[in-house]
This record gives sequence, C-alpha cells and structure tokens, in this order.
Amino acid sequence: MPRTGRRPGAPETRGRVLAAARASFADRGFDAASIRDVAARAGVDPALVHHYFGSKQQLFVAAMEWPIDPAIAIPRVAAGDVAGIGERLARFVVELWEDPTFQPVIVGLIRSAASDPVAASMLRGLVLGGPLPALAGVAGGPDAALRAELVGAQLIGFAMARYVLRVEPLASADREAIVGLLAPVFQHYLTASSGSESSAPTASPVRRQSA
Amino acid sequence: MPRTGRRPGAPETRGRVLAAARASFADRGFDAASIRDVAARAGVDPALVHHYFGSKQQLFVAAMEWPIDPAIAIPRVAAGDVAGIGERLARFVVELWEDPTFQPVIVGLIRSAASDPVAASMLRGLVLGGPLPALAGVAGGPDAALRAELVGAQLIGFAMARYVLRVEPLASADREAIVGLLAPVFQHYLTASSGSESSAPTASPVRRQSA
Repeated sequence: MPRTGRRPGAPETRGRVLAAARASFADRGFDAASIRDVAARAGVDPALVHHYFGSKQQLFVAAMEWPIDPAIAIPRVAAGDVAGIGERLARFVVELWEDPTFQPVIVGLIRSAASDPVAASMLRGLVLGGPLPALAGVAGGPDAALRAELVGAQLIGFAMARYVLRVEPLASADREAIVGLLAPVFQHYLTASSGSESSAPTASPVRRQSA
Repeated sequence: MPRTGRRPGAPETRGRVLAAARASFADRGFDAASIRDVAARAGVDPALVHHYFGSKQQLFVAAMEWPIDPAIAIPRVAAGDVAGIGERLARFVVELWEDPTFQPVIVGLIRSAASDPVAASMLRGLVLGGPLPALAGVAGGPDAALRAELVGAQLIGFAMARYVLRVEPLASADREAIVGLLAPVFQHYLTASSGSESSAPTASPVRRQSA
C-alpha cells in the first residue's frame, strides 16, 4: 500500500523506513528479512531504501541502533538506595521493552544474532556491554563484569521467552508480576558477594528466623 | 576427509551423521546449515544423509532430540532438601551443557529457533515445557508455570551469552562460579512466594543483622 504525496528523502520517510525495517527484522530475523519487504511495509520503492541506507546489513545497523543513552539510563536506575537497584532496573527494562517502538529493536537483535555476526556483535556490545557493567559497579560487589553479563543473559532469555518463543503464561503475564519476579534476581546479581553462602538470596526467611 | 571401510547404514554411521548434524546446526544455525556440510563433517555422501534422514528439517529433529529423560532428570534434581533444589538444578544443567555431546544440542536449538519454527517449537517444548514445571511444582509456591518459564528463560539467556555470543568473562568463567551465581536465582524462581517482599532474595544480610 504505497502512500502518495510524500517526498522521498524527507526525514519522515526515513523514519518510516527505519520503523518498517525494525518490524521486518523483528518478525523475520536478519536472514529472512529483505529490502523488498521493508520497502513494502514502508510504502516506498526498494530503490529508495537502497539509496538511503545501502545494503541490508547497513540498514540493519541503522534500524537497530540502540535507542537508549547509557548516560541517561544509568543515573535513572542507579539513583537511590542500593537495596532498590534490582527493582529499578527490572522496571526500567520491562517498561522499555513493552514500548512498541523499542520492542522490535531487542526482538530484531535477538532473532538476528544467531545467524548474523553483525547482529551478534551489536547484541554483545549493547545489551551485555552497555549500561549493565556500570550498574554492577555502582552497586558494588566483586566480579562486576560477570554479574552484569548474567543480568544481560537473564534479560536476553526473558525477551526470547516472552517475545520470540511466546511461551504462556510468561508471554501474557502483566508487567508488575514480571518486575516482581525479576527484581530480586537482578538485585542478587548486582550486589551479592561471589561465592559467599551467607549473601545468597534465600526463599526461606522462616528458616533464618528459627536459627 | 571421508573415511573408508565403513558400511553405510551401520548404526555407527548413523550416529556419526547425527553428531555431525549437531555440530553443523550449532555452528551455523538451521538456515545456514546444509546436508552437504553435515555429510562432509561425517565423511559420507550427501545422498546417504538424505536417504537415512530425509530433509534438512527431518535431520534437524532427529539430531536435536533432547537427550535427557525428564523421568530421570526430575528425581535427580528434586530429591533432597527443597532449600538445595536451586543448586542441584544449576549443577545438573551446567554439567550437562558443558558436556561436548550435549552442548551442540542446546546451542543448535538456540541458534535455529530465531528463524526456524520447528526449532522454536522444540526449544519451547523441551527447555521451557520439559522438566522445569515439574520441578517448580515439587518445590511448591504459586505460579509454578510462570516460575518454570523464568528458569528456562535464564537458562536460554545463559547459553546464548556463554556459548553463542561468548561474552567474557562469562564464557570462560569456571563451572563452580557459575553454579554459585545461578543457584540462588533458580532457588528464588522455584520456591519464592509471588509478590511477597519477605520471600525476596536479599543480597544484604548485613542490613538484616543490624535490624
């Protein structure tokens, strides 16, 4: 359904192509997505997409550019009591990924990372190497890099299960239930001492009281 | 490097083709893997692979069949104190996935699930719908299905980060360090009460002592 009356090359057209590319990569992954499909979704000629973005690989990089500036994200999560950092991070990420603009970015990266080295590199660098190590550093504790990567691993697995595999009841669970379950896990990863039994999260406070 | 002196169709040849298929799917994912590559790795003629296993999709299903019987896995993890179920599960899975026979199965499923619906269905059914819900049930607590899926999500994300993206230091971390970090998370997911602050894992026993 091509729209008419739009000037090719206008910033709005460029934004429409990028949104169409995010949707295509999120639905199909890098290998199966195509410039042709992106052009059809955006209602423009494939030649225009080529002209503005180059190859499918270049379009992928432009479309999947991570929309979050760590300089903004880190203070928002880090500010406040360290005891609440896990919940703030869980809430921040869940709100971000439930946003229809951002969700195709993480889904597109995950769907493409398994087969496309550029996508794998972006996912590695941005989800696992972005704001998370800084947060692990803010929260203190040894092995900050390892802990940050386990947070990233949980986030990737969560996105894969909820948005790609769409397993139920996880895919339909409401945000608060998810935040409630993820928050203590992030808190553990970001702040627990490595290898110390005494700092391991416990699900049995009753046992602790009876000691 | 085709080997000679083997009878095509012998059980050993079949096993060699399946091992080659697991390695190919793990390295390349479903889309990029090929019968030709599998045949070359196994040292047999591609026609033989076709003859015994049919299509690439049928070969994938045969090669990726989950090697773990839930009837054996569940009692091994569930037996013993509920307070140790998270560590037993973490140890069981990490030992399994570090095994060179089994690692290509989970890596191949993850690499292929993003683009191949059959692979996605197998990953959904076997990692997220296999023994985990039964373990969540054994450990008690509400929302067993949701909790089991979050364990599965953490496992998928862990495998993706360690074996596919190979982020450091996670990719080189020793097993005990990983078990030590994953165990309390699994314990939380499998046994904590939903939405109850008192059962949330805590990383600050010092604060608790000072209360």
